[in-house]
Amino acid sequence: MTAFFDAKETRTTEARALELVTRLPALVAHAQAKSPAFAKILAGVPSAQISTREALAALPVTRKGDLFEAQKAARPFGGFNAAAYGAVRRVFASPGPIYEPEGVKSDYGRVARALHAAGIRSGDLVYNTFSYHMTPGGWLMDAGAQALGCAVFPGGVGNTEQQIAAIHDLQPIAYAGTPSFLRILLEKADELGTPITCFKHALVSAEYFAPQLRALFAERGIAGLQCYATADAGLIAYETPAVQGMVIDEDIIVEIVRPGTGEVLPDGEVGEVVVTTFNDVYPLVRYGTGDLSAILPGVSPCGRTNARIKGWLGRADQTAKVKGMFVHPSQVAEIAKRFPEIAKARLTITNPDQRDEMSFSCECAAPSEALQLKIAQAMRDITKLGGNVVFVAASTQPNDGKVIDDQRKIT
Amino acid sequence: MTAFFDAKETRTTEARALELVTRLPALVAHAQAKSPAFAKILAGVPSAQISTREALAALPVTRKGDLFEAQKAARPFGGFNAAAYGAVRRVFASPGPIYEPEGVKSDYGRVARALHAAGIRSGDLVYNTFSYHMTPGGWLMDAGAQALGCAVFPGGVGNTEQQIAAIHDLQPIAYAGTPSFLRILLEKADELGTPITCFKHALVSAEYFAPQLRALFAERGIAGLQCYATADAGLIAYETPAVQGMVIDEDIIVEIVRPGTGEVLPDGEVGEVVVTTFNDVYPLVRYGTGDLSAILPGVSPCGRTNARIKGWLGRADQTAKVKGMFVHPSQVAEIAKRFPEIAKARLTITNPDQRDEMSFSCECAAPSEALQLKIAQAMRDITKLGGNVVFVAASTQPNDGKVIDDQRKIT
Repeated sequence: MTAFFDAKETRTTEARALELVTRLPALVAHAQAKSPAFAKILAGVPSAQISTREALAALPVTRKGDLFEAQKAARPFGGFNAAAYGAVRRVFASPGPIYEPEGVKSDYGRVARALHAAGIRSGDLVYNTFSYHMTPGGWLMDAGAQALGCAVFPGGVGNTEQQIAAIHDLQPIAYAGTPSFLRILLEKADELGTPITCFKHALVSAEYFAPQLRALFAERGIAGLQCYATADAGLIAYETPAVQGMVIDEDIIVEIVRPGTGEVLPDGEVGEVVVTTFNDVYPLVRYGTGDLSAILPGVSPCGRTNARIKGWLGRADQTAKVKGMFVHPSQVAEIAKRFPEIAKARLTITNPDQRDEMSFSCECAAPSEALQLKIAQAMRDITKLGGNVVFVAASTQPNDGKVIDDQRKIT
Repeated sequence: MTAFFDAKETRTTEARALELVTRLPALVAHAQAKSPAFAKILAGVPSAQISTREALAALPVTRKGDLFEAQKAARPFGGFNAAAYGAVRRVFASPGPIYEPEGVKSDYGRVARALHAAGIRSGDLVYNTFSYHMTPGGWLMDAGAQALGCAVFPGGVGNTEQQIAAIHDLQPIAYAGTPSFLRILLEKADELGTPITCFKHALVSAEYFAPQLRALFAERGIAGLQCYATADAGLIAYETPAVQGMVIDEDIIVEIVRPGTGEVLPDGEVGEVVVTTFNDVYPLVRYGTGDLSAILPGVSPCGRTNARIKGWLGRADQTAKVKGMFVHPSQVAEIAKRFPEIAKARLTITNPDQRDEMSFSCECAAPSEALQLKIAQAMRDITKLGGNVVFVAASTQPNDGKVIDDQRKIT
């Protein structure tokens, strides 16, 4: 049993970093040339010069909301696709709806690596309970399994009793799907007096994987690992037998940025996961996933050398409606940016006596009443709303990725 | 717009017949060597000599019931597969359940030809509403569309309103699915005040396609054609713009046999559709589909030269329970076979006064009371049941494929 999917997983950090940034100029040029949306977003960007992480970090971040608006204006892909229907294998619809094209390349979403890390090998039968209808979940897993040389049973969702019968008849060694549905299958099979004993490996995703559930699977001899993938980007990171965070995929660049901005955060700080993918028909340059995570310091004991991220730590889109007006994380960032004295800012919303109140707290080296007034004025200019300004000591705000902390209570 | 999918469709009848029988010896040898089930069924058969339709017609017919029993005894494929999980792309479960392996060959079920005949071309977006979950329907269409160079939206079944939204956003030119679901989509969209106008082509299957429904689609500018495909065999026959019966696929041998037997019927007589496929991982030599059809005499005006079958004319499995005992079409054939005088036989079951009665009517050139007594005795020997024997004039029995005509009424 080979521990690694390929040699990329154990290359040096320097070799990986160099290889990825070396691919950036061609990616940027490709996106500019073939994707009308990125032609606009990256207008005037000298692609040849985008050959470092720093140069990449200076490019704008495109978020799900931008994609949604662009698609509404120009169906189906809002100009984000780099190929027409003829060069696309399938089209999917994610909730929104947001449409994604699937390229013709084998294992387009790069999931084979995650399946391999979960112990799944060529010749195995993978029982796939992600849906194949409309959304890409089932397809991402299926294509990864095909690339590994596995056979797949496309179970899809629901039909629990029929699925249990098929599992008994086919004896698949591997499960792919949500952890909660695996639990339902196992418990229902027990109830029917026909326990499922064939599964040895499970690659789960799409929802929180509780440690208790992982332990429950382990008791039944099932090694359950999770991966983090999105409809737009495919595989972003995956667990390995070390079970310490998720190792970043080898063909993607992951940045953690301050929500609402493009500012890359120091390792360990919680922020939005921003990805850059090299998918030919759907290139994404700094795409904000809307998910919060953080780089996990250190190296995985499994031998893979890539950086790791913590699991899913919440949603980055903290837009709130205050006194009938939308307040966006980008506005909080804009206020802070006007004052070099502010190291870190956070907007807290409360509603004592059912009236919305905003409090802008900032870590500031040189607090003063004059500065406080100026910040309050900037707040009014940018949000059209008034609020308190509070100075706090450096590094006293929680590391939870929150730029807008909505503490209002519904009574 | 090319009228034909390939040159095979317009070759001479002789060239086609020769090419197909030339492939038989290798198919039989492959099935004997790689499929443990066919090794038994075809034990002792000299594969090199199975090089004519007549030699093929002498081989046993394998029916769905045989497959079901074999699979129950040896999961998952009952030894009918010619490859293990590692050489199989997917596994499906048809109602029964009966499991089918999908080969790794592109367009494994050969549906591209039917999509092409329906007017669908490379670069089109095919909106596929067959299910991809458990059963192979969605996959057969999907693989055919991929082979043609189309993009596919895997809509699956249900979610009517979401599907209508996706159709409006994606503007697919082609529909694949059941005719009844297309009707539901069109009528629901009208009801919502957002009529669907993008569809120009529809390939429908899996249920009866009423002429009124075809006309309703045509009024909306949708050319609806149907195809006949099964989970085990893939594409068997397809409609062409001529809309006169269904042209048999180029890579399959179709025979029409007397239900319950392997006896090939003259062109025009209604009988069971028996297929021989050249699928590498799932070779089928004389597989009885259980469907009734008949060869449609003459040639299609569309220019395709292959023989045509009429549409689906009912189910061939006419097993009936009489006075608590099963009576099979093969038993009716066995009785008739004992008497060379009998040209054609039919068992009619009635229940006057709520008592089951059997009447064995036979077309016979030389009727006599002595023969009548002998046939009645053979009936008792073979079915363990008594019944009347009636002689009728030649060619007076209906051409409906019925060997057992169950006319009992539930009162």
